[in-house]
Amino acid sequence: MPRLRLALNQIDSTVGDLDANAEAVLRQTRHSADRGAHLVAFPEMMLTGYPVEDLALRSSFVEASRAALRALAARLAAEGLGGLPVVVGYLDRSATARPKYGQPAGAPQNAAAVLYGGEVALTFAKHHLPNYGVFDEFRYFVPGDTMPVVRVRGVDVALAICEDLWQDGGRVPAARSARAGLLLSVNASPYERDKDDTRLELVRKRAQEAGCTTAYLAMTGGQDELVFDGDSIVVDRDGAVVARAPQFTEECVVLDLDLPAADPRAPAGVVDDGLRVDRAVLSEEPVAEDGPRLSGGRAEPLDDDAEVYSALVAGLRAYVTKNGFRSVLIGLSGGIDSSLVAAIACDALGAEHVHGVSMPSRYSSEHSKDDAAELARRTGLHYRTVAIGPMFDAYMGALGLTGLAEENLQSRLRGTLLMALSNQEGHLVLAPGNKSELAVGYSTLYGDSVGAYGPIKDVYKTSVFRLSEWRNRAAEARGQTPPIPENSITKPPSAELRPGQVDTDSLPDYPVLDAILALYVDRDRGADEIVAAGYDRDLVTRTLRMVDTAEYKRRQYPPGTKISAKGFGKDRRLPVTNRWRETG
Amino acid sequence: MPRLRLALNQIDSTVGDLDANAEAVLRQTRHSADRGAHLVAFPEMMLTGYPVEDLALRSSFVEASRAALRALAARLAAEGLGGLPVVVGYLDRSATARPKYGQPAGAPQNAAAVLYGGEVALTFAKHHLPNYGVFDEFRYFVPGDTMPVVRVRGVDVALAICEDLWQDGGRVPAARSARAGLLLSVNASPYERDKDDTRLELVRKRAQEAGCTTAYLAMTGGQDELVFDGDSIVVDRDGAVVARAPQFTEECVVLDLDLPAADPRAPAGVVDDGLRVDRAVLSEEPVAEDGPRLSGGRAEPLDDDAEVYSALVAGLRAYVTKNGFRSVLIGLSGGIDSSLVAAIACDALGAEHVHGVSMPSRYSSEHSKDDAAELARRTGLHYRTVAIGPMFDAYMGALGLTGLAEENLQSRLRGTLLMALSNQEGHLVLAPGNKSELAVGYSTLYGDSVGAYGPIKDVYKTSVFRLSEWRNRAAEARGQTPPIPENSITKPPSAELRPGQVDTDSLPDYPVLDAILALYVDRDRGADEIVAAGYDRDLVTRTLRMVDTAEYKRRQYPPGTKISAKGFGKDRRLPVTNRWRETG
Repeated sequence: MPRLRLALNQIDSTVGDLDANAEAVLRQTRHSADRGAHLVAFPEMMLTGYPVEDLALRSSFVEASRAALRALAARLAAEGLGGLPVVVGYLDRSATARPKYGQPAGAPQNAAAVLYGGEVALTFAKHHLPNYGVFDEFRYFVPGDTMPVVRVRGVDVALAICEDLWQDGGRVPAARSARAGLLLSVNASPYERDKDDTRLELVRKRAQEAGCTTAYLAMTGGQDELVFDGDSIVVDRDGAVVARAPQFTEECVVLDLDLPAADPRAPAGVVDDGLRVDRAVLSEEPVAEDGPRLSGGRAEPLDDDAEVYSALVAGLRAYVTKNGFRSVLIGLSGGIDSSLVAAIACDALGAEHVHGVSMPSRYSSEHSKDDAAELARRTGLHYRTVAIGPMFDAYMGALGLTGLAEENLQSRLRGTLLMALSNQEGHLVLAPGNKSELAVGYSTLYGDSVGAYGPIKDVYKTSVFRLSEWRNRAAEARGQTPPIPENSITKPPSAELRPGQVDTDSLPDYPVLDAILALYVDRDRGADEIVAAGYDRDLVTRTLRMVDTAEYKRRQYPPGTKISAKGFGKDRRLPVTNRWRETG
Repeated sequence: MPRLRLALNQIDSTVGDLDANAEAVLRQTRHSADRGAHLVAFPEMMLTGYPVEDLALRSSFVEASRAALRALAARLAAEGLGGLPVVVGYLDRSATARPKYGQPAGAPQNAAAVLYGGEVALTFAKHHLPNYGVFDEFRYFVPGDTMPVVRVRGVDVALAICEDLWQDGGRVPAARSARAGLLLSVNASPYERDKDDTRLELVRKRAQEAGCTTAYLAMTGGQDELVFDGDSIVVDRDGAVVARAPQFTEECVVLDLDLPAADPRAPAGVVDDGLRVDRAVLSEEPVAEDGPRLSGGRAEPLDDDAEVYSALVAGLRAYVTKNGFRSVLIGLSGGIDSSLVAAIACDALGAEHVHGVSMPSRYSSEHSKDDAAELARRTGLHYRTVAIGPMFDAYMGALGLTGLAEENLQSRLRGTLLMALSNQEGHLVLAPGNKSELAVGYSTLYGDSVGAYGPIKDVYKTSVFRLSEWRNRAAEARGQTPPIPENSITKPPSAELRPGQVDTDSLPDYPVLDAILALYVDRDRGADEIVAAGYDRDLVTRTLRMVDTAEYKRRQYPPGTKISAKGFGKDRRLPVTNRWRETG
């Protein structure tokens, strides 16, 4: 049985940065070659980054991607790596699709290529296009219609891209029909809580359907609201796990696979689902089984809290650094939201790049100021205090505000203060809002919603508590100072915009609120179904009404790390003008 | 030849307001009956409003739409209108589609029904689903697979929904194969500049393909960023225009059509594109040709400036009233942007519902204050002045800002002031930004970008000038006071955030800027193509760099009336983190 040493480069990529992405491919290919690889793979749309969104419709970008691919092939050969086949995702256009009304202009394709001998030896495009959740691929791409099979060292390797494995039919059965010895899928599969388990089961099932060893190479890193969690997987034809890469970490997984030799009876022509087998024979000579067999390793998946926390850190780090910032600024209220955001920021960037500012008003409690200062002491972030009294008095003198207008004013004065410091000193402002308050509109537009990024935008308040406690425990387990003051965790949440205010004046208790929100927002359940699940009808009515009327605020919220199937962002689009009330 | 009196109800609808939308159908059906109609039609998704976006994925909303449809059928009969067939758009779900990974949950459909005799006599769903520009219909719907034909007074009427006419194949050739005597398409076709001409040519072409008289019923009104401009059209089988409804106006077009009698050889079964003919025979007896023949009228299309201005007025009016506001608030700088927005607001809502506030700083010129006051005098809007000096001094005392931070501070103090008045008095704040400054990021986030709606968000600065002049001329032609002070039109545009500042310090001249932007933003042309079109390379490079880096600001901009194929909103999605620079 021929042996193939496969190098799966689970790495990050930045949308639009063709030069840097190509450089990463070159660097990692060299590293893979040093480790003796026979076949090297990179994630979906590695060369352009993922998702490119409307850039797919700009022909100059499509052409730049194509040119970058050819240049990369030549460069690899020039650096002595031409004999090593490299599978890399990029953006292409269909050469055969005819212009058609309703089809994306220029017929762009989510493509991948096999680079070999200084040339582009084979290209293909994603067959199944996802157009749900965070995906809009019918909008941007036309589908591929081939079953690509590349022969490497005497083994036929069938190739696929991401959704090709998620949907039934297409390349998985076609890989079996084509009698492939290995199915290699390159992916940029966005993180969701618990998706690692789903993905593992999927790959196991598809390997059995394809009837061959299946390697699932994932991207890792972050792009705006999306996080890519890595967790690349290789399973054998019986669905048993052969190797698994760690989550949220760049990694070159190198492993030896003993695979069936190419079958001389393998068919040409059209196989399943209209897919036409497209073969490229790169090398026939099998590898001699020699030396120790590399296993690729088997990383343990993180536990649930560690996984979510890691996603938030990875998302924030990617956003800040990819946008060219070096430091962040956070308004510190002493409350749990801003404390957790600060802890995440310190883990993502280092405390020396995190700036906190306490902005007390006449309604701020002593413990708020103390807790904020204590957080700063524990984490080592830069800390200062600017009272908003003089600004507040200037507005009140001119306008004589009352009630909600007076409450919101304080929040907006803080937003303006943060932006002023951001403009003056160059920090990126973080918005501390969580998913619970965002869902029900319990925030001030242009106030606490100010910021370029909302790290916990997709985290319910009950999870904010759980993650804070987890982070503190993790520090203790490592003999470090827990970053978040105990008092920030235990005191009742309050916006402190009027005397004695607490969140429960306006909102249900968070455990109940979050349970209702999870059913309504994440699972699209109706009012009657939520009541049937055991919640008080009046409470459900009140909660759903708040959610139904908060769409405008959500539209103006900054992006933030996505960790659920349905947050508020590109996967949740509601009209602003909408008279439908789930509660009638 | 049988005669059919057709009533096309070109009206508005509000997303989610099932009760009010059903009430409008009832009212207009009664009106149509009073005028002797034999067949009554309403726009696409009339009952639910359009577009419903993620509400399509909520089964409680789908069920509510279905229930509302049945209730409407019963109600029409109860009110003595059961004998009149009514075609009405609504949201349904497929009874036959099997759950499939990647397909919208619950298999929702963009559907329409024929109501007759207190029952739902026939239903069908849109066959061609648009998923480009402002449309996401692959995300939300599964396609219909029938060719619905309803026999009314001895005439076979083929039915279609919007995109069914825009794309080749499907129901247009199927209507011919089914030997229909009339093709009736119900639509919610969003406005774009010059789209009326495209649409007219389309309907003429499709009528000839279908080989029968074709009626294209359009929606009118506004939904968030979309405006529906009406302009319903009826053409005969040779493509000659029979009737045309006015733009931006609710109208019941009633006309008599002499149509071929139903063909006894008309086929059953599957015709073109896999569409299965689905027939309902409601009434066989032809109408006696009796009394004067109603022509339906032939409205003249508006000229270009009047059309765009009407779209902006219609969009703003719909947004404000549908969101339950009665008044708007505008910061008046004396500049042309806020002046035009004020004029639009006065036309949309009446000057008594428009509140302007001048917020001078130390850098505000005398003419700015004078021009703002003059605008108020001319239009009659409510006007006040609140100087921002004290607030500015309070921030500067605490923070000692310089440069851009000091400039942006002034703009943000004004944003906070507007929101404070909005919260205190209940007005909806309008953002005055235009498309040129939005494109290049020449605005202050949380400053002049503050507002719930940006009426001229999709209007280039050169168009702002042209529309202002047009509006003044239109007033003069009617013997009214031109609303916009001449000085606001003629003086050089300035943000007045530092002494002597003018826009051309930072930006190219607007005619050149807008020409470059139109190529880059609206037509997706690359840098080389724009240079080849005759623009200086350095200027192109500088302009495109500004556009490439302003995405974050655009994400946080409020919605505004859409008048172009590609503005900034749901039809333009770029990653925030994006290193692609068109200019290399």
